[in-house]
Amino acid sequence: MNLDDLRNHITLLGQQSRAASRLVAKASTASKNKALRSAAQYIRQHSEFILEANHKDLSKAKEQGLEASFIDRLTLTANSIENMAQGLEQIALLPDPVGEITDVARRPSGIEVGKMRVPLGVIAIIYEARPNVTADAAGLCLKSGNACILRGGSEAFHSNQEIAKALHLGLREAGLPESAIQVLSTTDRAAVGELITLNHYIDVIVPRGGKGLIERIAKEATIPVIKHLDGICHVFIDRSADIKMAIAIADNAKTQRYGTCNTMETLLVHQDIAEQVLPPLVAIYTSKGVECRADSLARKIVPQMKEATEEDWLTEYLAPILSIKLVANLDEAIDHISRYGSQHTDAIITNDWNNANRFIREVDSSSVMVNASTRFADGFEYGLGAEIGISTDKLHARGPVGLEGLTNQKYVVFGHGEIRVG
Amino acid sequence: MNLDDLRNHITLLGQQSRAASRLVAKASTASKNKALRSAAQYIRQHSEFILEANHKDLSKAKEQGLEASFIDRLTLTANSIENMAQGLEQIALLPDPVGEITDVARRPSGIEVGKMRVPLGVIAIIYEARPNVTADAAGLCLKSGNACILRGGSEAFHSNQEIAKALHLGLREAGLPESAIQVLSTTDRAAVGELITLNHYIDVIVPRGGKGLIERIAKEATIPVIKHLDGICHVFIDRSADIKMAIAIADNAKTQRYGTCNTMETLLVHQDIAEQVLPPLVAIYTSKGVECRADSLARKIVPQMKEATEEDWLTEYLAPILSIKLVANLDEAIDHISRYGSQHTDAIITNDWNNANRFIREVDSSSVMVNASTRFADGFEYGLGAEIGISTDKLHARGPVGLEGLTNQKYVVFGHGEIRVG
Repeated sequence: MNLDDLRNHITLLGQQSRAASRLVAKASTASKNKALRSAAQYIRQHSEFILEANHKDLSKAKEQGLEASFIDRLTLTANSIENMAQGLEQIALLPDPVGEITDVARRPSGIEVGKMRVPLGVIAIIYEARPNVTADAAGLCLKSGNACILRGGSEAFHSNQEIAKALHLGLREAGLPESAIQVLSTTDRAAVGELITLNHYIDVIVPRGGKGLIERIAKEATIPVIKHLDGICHVFIDRSADIKMAIAIADNAKTQRYGTCNTMETLLVHQDIAEQVLPPLVAIYTSKGVECRADSLARKIVPQMKEATEEDWLTEYLAPILSIKLVANLDEAIDHISRYGSQHTDAIITNDWNNANRFIREVDSSSVMVNASTRFADGFEYGLGAEIGISTDKLHARGPVGLEGLTNQKYVVFGHGEIRVG
Repeated sequence: MNLDDLRNHITLLGQQSRAASRLVAKASTASKNKALRSAAQYIRQHSEFILEANHKDLSKAKEQGLEASFIDRLTLTANSIENMAQGLEQIALLPDPVGEITDVARRPSGIEVGKMRVPLGVIAIIYEARPNVTADAAGLCLKSGNACILRGGSEAFHSNQEIAKALHLGLREAGLPESAIQVLSTTDRAAVGELITLNHYIDVIVPRGGKGLIERIAKEATIPVIKHLDGICHVFIDRSADIKMAIAIADNAKTQRYGTCNTMETLLVHQDIAEQVLPPLVAIYTSKGVECRADSLARKIVPQMKEATEEDWLTEYLAPILSIKLVANLDEAIDHISRYGSQHTDAIITNDWNNANRFIREVDSSSVMVNASTRFADGFEYGLGAEIGISTDKLHARGPVGLEGLTNQKYVVFGHGEIRVG
């Protein structure tokens, strides 16, 4: 497709999505749930076709010599397809956020003013070659009353197209427009550039994937973006921490999974408790193959650790590597987090009431925690039911973004003929 | 100043603001209120200096032959200075939004998850030559725990600098950093370009002023913008409307003030009621000097109206001009608003329960009203106390933006040593 044709194609998609968004915005909860449940059934019924399509994608990816972790994310199994179907059924069970009216108050003029929760409109989601995201993201957008345009990694093209068929059958069965969920049928990379500048027809962009992709999209988009770039998460073990608790949390926050954005990347330890905490903790890390890089004070206590550089404090390893630093007090810990952190998730382990309160108040991250593992920063763990991603932006949603984050509130005014005089 | 010097200067301002933002974010309500009340007193004490500075600005503006409405907005009087001081005192009386913790719920894992309301950080406000905005905007940012950088129109330079002195004295008296409120001391236009791309140090841009300015800033900013471009507001008089009420509201929505963004620009009338509504209503408009431009159906009822063109439906007149269109039903009214409106404020006048509910639900504007004048779309009328502007964006705040719109919610997690296992 040449660029003009591509532009026309994307514009047409946008127009169709805009039209569909008005219909799904006012759709009943029952019909949205019916579409989700039917789509789940069609995913099950079509699982052989989906697996076949996935096989096609996998063959090509292996031919191209893509790496094992990439192939892993691309691979569907009977089990993961069943999970996809169940995911849609779980979204159907979540309460519908749309239409909720709150905070209605009578004003001196006589009008009653409240807020109504409403969908955002048309959401474009740009993600990597992970076919399960196609069903998840579409389900969340539909339940929250939004139309969506999905652009998955081109390596998952056939899988995504096959999943889209099941989603469309579900929409049709519920009497909802198929264009409420559009899965891009072109693998042209230029399509992303067109999508992220289609201001008239798309309200929000949600990029998911590597930092490079997200940075590029945030820079070039002329439409608001919900995103997170880095997850440089900290755990600060305060002087008054329960040692056993501190070790268990610091272990869990780093080693439960290495590749997730809510994994701890830097451990801060109060210097007065470091001699009790560091030796056993580093022994655990070493036994699990975690490389520790520490500042000179920490290395006085555990000399076999490598020396950390300035670069380490700024790095999201997403790997079995951890940077460790001793601090003299809470202020130094907060200063470090504010300077090097990514405003994602940071935790304090403490028994000091005042320090816990100060940490929660003064650390400006989307999730701040007391005496819990950073790994809890997650839509399911927070009770959102599901999440479309985690936002480290300052506007709109911060932290895990679920159904509520895909909506907003508008003002509703109930009058009785009031006119303004002042 | 050459561009490098300017860039260094703006970067330094940004760094100072970022540092100050951490201090005002954790400042007590009492100290923020003290700063506001002291600043109000200093504004009163310094009123002669402020008037003198304003006189200097006015002389120059008149020399340059700037138009009367511009001079009007630039002019300060003893009275408007007293209003400025009282505005700050009123902000001191508003409840402090920062630190509110809500929605705390226990999760199966044992952690308790809630939300805490927190400031946005550093807010840059770019506005026209209206010196009263300097005090208002600074007061709202301070009360909501944000640092701000203010860039008013260069024609108000001396006035703004003098007001800034009073604000700084207030901050100093409360023990808060003066750099929490920075008023740009350069009138260089390139400064705006630097401000709106200072991602590391500024979290949000709030442009206020003409559409051209706002469009340019929205296009060039690499920082999220809270804005509104147009106020193409509609009133739809439904078939079942109370005729007297409909006429009173349609009169008020257009003629109470012509230049405000919540003024009605297009009147939609159900064709079945048009013969009863239009003749008396157009007579009122005509008596007040409002030019009516109507579609052919409406002109059959009141032939002396001019013919409206496609362009009229898309125009925010901000003047005594009104476009009028007859519609066959609610759907046609909603379609028109969705096609030509600006998602600002739209009202229905009706006695039909179902139509009122559909209008409220289906019209995707920041304010939707039943049986009230669009002129009520305002922070004061809604009970926000004050507003920094009105947002027609889809993300973050919609409608009048008060203290709450200058904050956001982060997640707080209260644990007892929980680690994640699943």
